Amino acid sequence: MFRNFRLVPNIIFGRGCFDQLDEIISKQRSDTSSWAVFVVDKVFQGKPLEKRLPLHDRDLLLWADTTHEPKTSYVDELTLQTKEFHSQLPCAVMGIGGGSAMDLSKAVSLMLTNEGSSTLYQGWDLIQNPAVYHAAVPTLSGTGAEVSRTAVLTGPEKKLGLNSDYTVFDQVVLDPELTEGVPREQHFYTGMDCYIHCVESLEGNFINEFSRAYGEKSLELCRQVFLEPHENARDKLMMASFFGGMSIAYSQVGACHALSYGLSFVLGTHHGIGCCITFDALEEYYPKGVAEFRTMMDKAGVDIPRNVTADLTSEQMETMITVALGLDPLWENCLGKDWKTIMTRDKARQLFLRM
Amino acid sequence: MFRNFRLVPNIIFGRGCFDQLDEIISKQRSDTSSWAVFVVDKVFQGKPLEKRLPLHDRDLLLWADTTHEPKTSYVDELTLQTKEFHSQLPCAVMGIGGGSAMDLSKAVSLMLTNEGSSTLYQGWDLIQNPAVYHAAVPTLSGTGAEVSRTAVLTGPEKKLGLNSDYTVFDQVVLDPELTEGVPREQHFYTGMDCYIHCVESLEGNFINEFSRAYGEKSLELCRQVFLEPHENARDKLMMASFFGGMSIAYSQVGACHALSYGLSFVLGTHHGIGCCITFDALEEYYPKGVAEFRTMMDKAGVDIPRNVTADLTSEQMETMITVALGLDPLWENCLGKDWKTIMTRDKARQLFLRM
Repeated sequence: MFRNFRLVPNIIFGRGCFDQLDEIISKQRSDTSSWAVFVVDKVFQGKPLEKRLPLHDRDLLLWADTTHEPKTSYVDELTLQTKEFHSQLPCAVMGIGGGSAMDLSKAVSLMLTNEGSSTLYQGWDLIQNPAVYHAAVPTLSGTGAEVSRTAVLTGPEKKLGLNSDYTVFDQVVLDPELTEGVPREQHFYTGMDCYIHCVESLEGNFINEFSRAYGEKSLELCRQVFLEPHENARDKLMMASFFGGMSIAYSQVGACHALSYGLSFVLGTHHGIGCCITFDALEEYYPKGVAEFRTMMDKAGVDIPRNVTADLTSEQMETMITVALGLDPLWENCLGKDWKTIMTRDKARQLFLRM
Repeated sequence: MFRNFRLVPNIIFGRGCFDQLDEIISKQRSDTSSWAVFVVDKVFQGKPLEKRLPLHDRDLLLWADTTHEPKTSYVDELTLQTKEFHSQLPCAVMGIGGGSAMDLSKAVSLMLTNEGSSTLYQGWDLIQNPAVYHAAVPTLSGTGAEVSRTAVLTGPEKKLGLNSDYTVFDQVVLDPELTEGVPREQHFYTGMDCYIHCVESLEGNFINEFSRAYGEKSLELCRQVFLEPHENARDKLMMASFFGGMSIAYSQVGACHALSYGLSFVLGTHHGIGCCITFDALEEYYPKGVAEFRTMMDKAGVDIPRNVTADLTSEQMETMITVALGLDPLWENCLGKDWKTIMTRDKARQLFLRM
């Protein structure tokens, strides 16, 4: 059985294409009572992008606080705010920002049509009803959230996404200009999220020629961006992110993402930097990838926090291990069906202690 | 203004995934009166694939005669046959075969909901109404018809596609196993269609980093298939075809495709071989590409017909030139806005005489 894979059905790409957003949303505004929700990363409050948002009178602007990784409680709060704003459903939910803002907008668009708390839907294919039309404008490249079928959320019990075909955006607006102001460290960490998930995809057991073609090209683009000076580096990283997302959409990530989920769950570490911290400890599993990652880190003049697990209580460590080992498909992709005999709790603990 | 580009929203990839076709179509069969049309390349009549077609009692099987390139008159005939089969519209039109069968199925799905002859819609964005749900199962890799927004047809006056967002398939089933029986020459000619349109895309004026990422990877896969012995060559060529289609969907083809349309219109030359004959005469415009194409031709042990235009009447030659020079966007992509001062009728004649 092969998965019938849902793709983003509409893409616009180009420097300045953000200016066409109003026209794109207008196709969803069926009558004068139609209204849209904009979920926009709070970092843009008071920035030039705020003035460029194509808000109409009846629209709702939600500034998304991305200080912390998206939480189920925050999704429930934003959903409630949207429901209370108007009794009628919005015609569109727009996510503008990095992975967090995009995942929040995906989750809100799903929770508007699926009852109860978002915690109920953390897992695979638990969503029952189609989402409200939702579109993404990434302002940060690397996460692949713009094409993935998940909205990664931290809940009271686990960090796990709302994985479903309904999660996939209906439209993506890829404007490389919007990524120009990203701070150097964040540019690196988020770019490495892409690099790392492509290594995990390409070296995993679930690989096929579809994922390989996307993953290989994504890695090549990452190398152009992070190892050699190249023209159009922002455009290239945006394509690397898109291709990386396409690669894992049909295969799976691996050990690094699994462990990083444990780290984020307990320490609240943001995803990009969490992946970097984790990957640096995984030489045993991805020797070539880790070596190249370190070269990229040198070139970028960026470092990662060390000894992040040194002060954990044993209870925190056990939780971290439990969350990480709960991600079966990721481990099976990396280590095969017998992964439990290899990645024991002790082994996971040793790896965490290296971070 | 950037084009908001329509993608195939559902893709399944893998050896043997053809067996999931019935399940995929079943989602379109809303009630017991639902019926589907299968437009299947006639070469499969009496072949093992015929027995594997997931036909239901009420379904219509149309064997597509691909002896000639798809004609508007043939599309109109197949559409009429479909309309006469049942007063209600079919729930799905399935195209199974190479570029011709896929383009015929696209065109039928469009003409079932758009009145009049298909000749009325040869051009860009002339289609008024959405098509019937339509899906493709390519059995030949290279054309990119599985992802393109066109259905190329030869009409009484021109060879020109039905270009529209509605033309794009709703589903593509990519099963590399189905391409195993393709004769050596056809495998080469159709693979070269992909190679050539990627060269045209990458060296054209309309290129952006989106088209470049797809085009470069497609060329690399073509090289793996045609220059080096590689595992999974059929899978790789299927991905090359998909990526090549994605590359030109956001850029454009060039001189070779424009001239080959003239050739096909007058001589009925099939598209793949027509591209090869034309490309071989275009060293002046694509020197590196033509050199590599000749190496691939040598390796494949395949040759192309020569002196195909030697016996043309002057009237035929003038028609050939008129059809080729009618494709403005292709020439602008290749030669820039002033292309008419470069590609004069005399110059086009010289090029045709070399073929």
